[in-house]
Amino acid sequence: MIQLVALDADDTLWHNEPLYTSTREQFRSMLARYEPAHVLDDQLYEVELRNLEHFGYGVKGFVLSMIETAIELTDGRLESADVRTIIDWGRQMLRSPVELLDGVQEAVEMLSQAYPLILLTKGDLLHQESKLARSGLGPLFKGIEVVSEKDAHVYRNVMQRYAVPGNRFVMVGNSLRSDILPVLQAGGHAVFVPYEISWIHERVSAEALADMQYHQISHIRELPELLLTLG
Amino acid sequence: MIQLVALDADDTLWHNEPLYTSTREQFRSMLARYEPAHVLDDQLYEVELRNLEHFGYGVKGFVLSMIETAIELTDGRLESADVRTIIDWGRQMLRSPVELLDGVQEAVEMLSQAYPLILLTKGDLLHQESKLARSGLGPLFKGIEVVSEKDAHVYRNVMQRYAVPGNRFVMVGNSLRSDILPVLQAGGHAVFVPYEISWIHERVSAEALADMQYHQISHIRELPELLLTLG
Repeated sequence: MIQLVALDADDTLWHNEPLYTSTREQFRSMLARYEPAHVLDDQLYEVELRNLEHFGYGVKGFVLSMIETAIELTDGRLESADVRTIIDWGRQMLRSPVELLDGVQEAVEMLSQAYPLILLTKGDLLHQESKLARSGLGPLFKGIEVVSEKDAHVYRNVMQRYAVPGNRFVMVGNSLRSDILPVLQAGGHAVFVPYEISWIHERVSAEALADMQYHQISHIRELPELLLTLG
Repeated sequence: MIQLVALDADDTLWHNEPLYTSTREQFRSMLARYEPAHVLDDQLYEVELRNLEHFGYGVKGFVLSMIETAIELTDGRLESADVRTIIDWGRQMLRSPVELLDGVQEAVEMLSQAYPLILLTKGDLLHQESKLARSGLGPLFKGIEVVSEKDAHVYRNVMQRYAVPGNRFVMVGNSLRSDILPVLQAGGHAVFVPYEISWIHERVSAEALADMQYHQISHIRELPELLLTLG
């Protein structure tokens, strides 16, 4: 019997990656006059990765990485009006409306009647709290845990904090790298609900998945029924 | 009898504001060729305040605010080499060594033997976790709570999460605005340990303090003895 259900936020409950994708497209158009697009894509991702340890996940680090990439790619010719535009994109991303995925409202309401729910997510603390508040789902959650990284150690801490053994804990999310593999390492259950697109950084190889015992559903609507079979 | 001691981090356990102060000075020197310094100070603070609701507390938001201020003050003449320098300052701030305040190591060790301790701080989640890890104090704390704002609601949530009534909870910190007033509103004890300098945003008027029952010590060394008298 499951005692705690942890739900990922971005691209599990509400759309997120499309915001990054469309901002990357605007960024590519802005810089099109300097460099061919494929070099740009590689370089932005490289700068993002390099900055992850300093800036962490979330919009602010993404904005700083875009600015750095733009300066590098333009050999310092970047105009400050463009810098300002990039910062404005960041502010727009942060206050962009929260759009729930289809069926989430009903599924979360149903789950909240049967299990304590927590939101377990990476990213900017302030931004994730703000999105949860604006989503209207806040009152259905017992807690919100914003973490700087989702690894087995963090999952063990969460289980401990809520006093739930691994085999009574389930994590639900769209990232194999963050929501599935480390949960299994920590002894919990994991349910993978793929989203239409994913950031390169969150992908994992087929080898890493070999012999991994996780569940996959194509829609969060199927979650309540699946949970009855776990534990 | 006190059952939970919550300690603020920046400028309570380790030096922080001097990093901001010296970065503001470098920023002022960088822009000296455009505008007189006093206009600059006002404007940076104004931009920081305006951005707080979007970017929250911490180094990344500060960096974005410096860049915006610089672009505004130079009417867009800011060179991208200067933008890059500002981002580099941010990275330097984030990885700057953690310098404990005098006496903190001993005081925290002593306290940890008598009470469960938590770190309760605003700012970037990743950065605060990294500072606690690098401080060497991590193992002395039962928990770390990074919050997006310190208001009475947040303090009540923390008391609830640790199952401690207000009159058994004490918050210790250097900000009247964040560590003292909202704790009193939430029914807890509060101990003010002033730091040599404070950010304008954290200051409060004498009127706001009238009739407020908090404790003040001049050094964290005095904390263990004071705690014996509370509860």
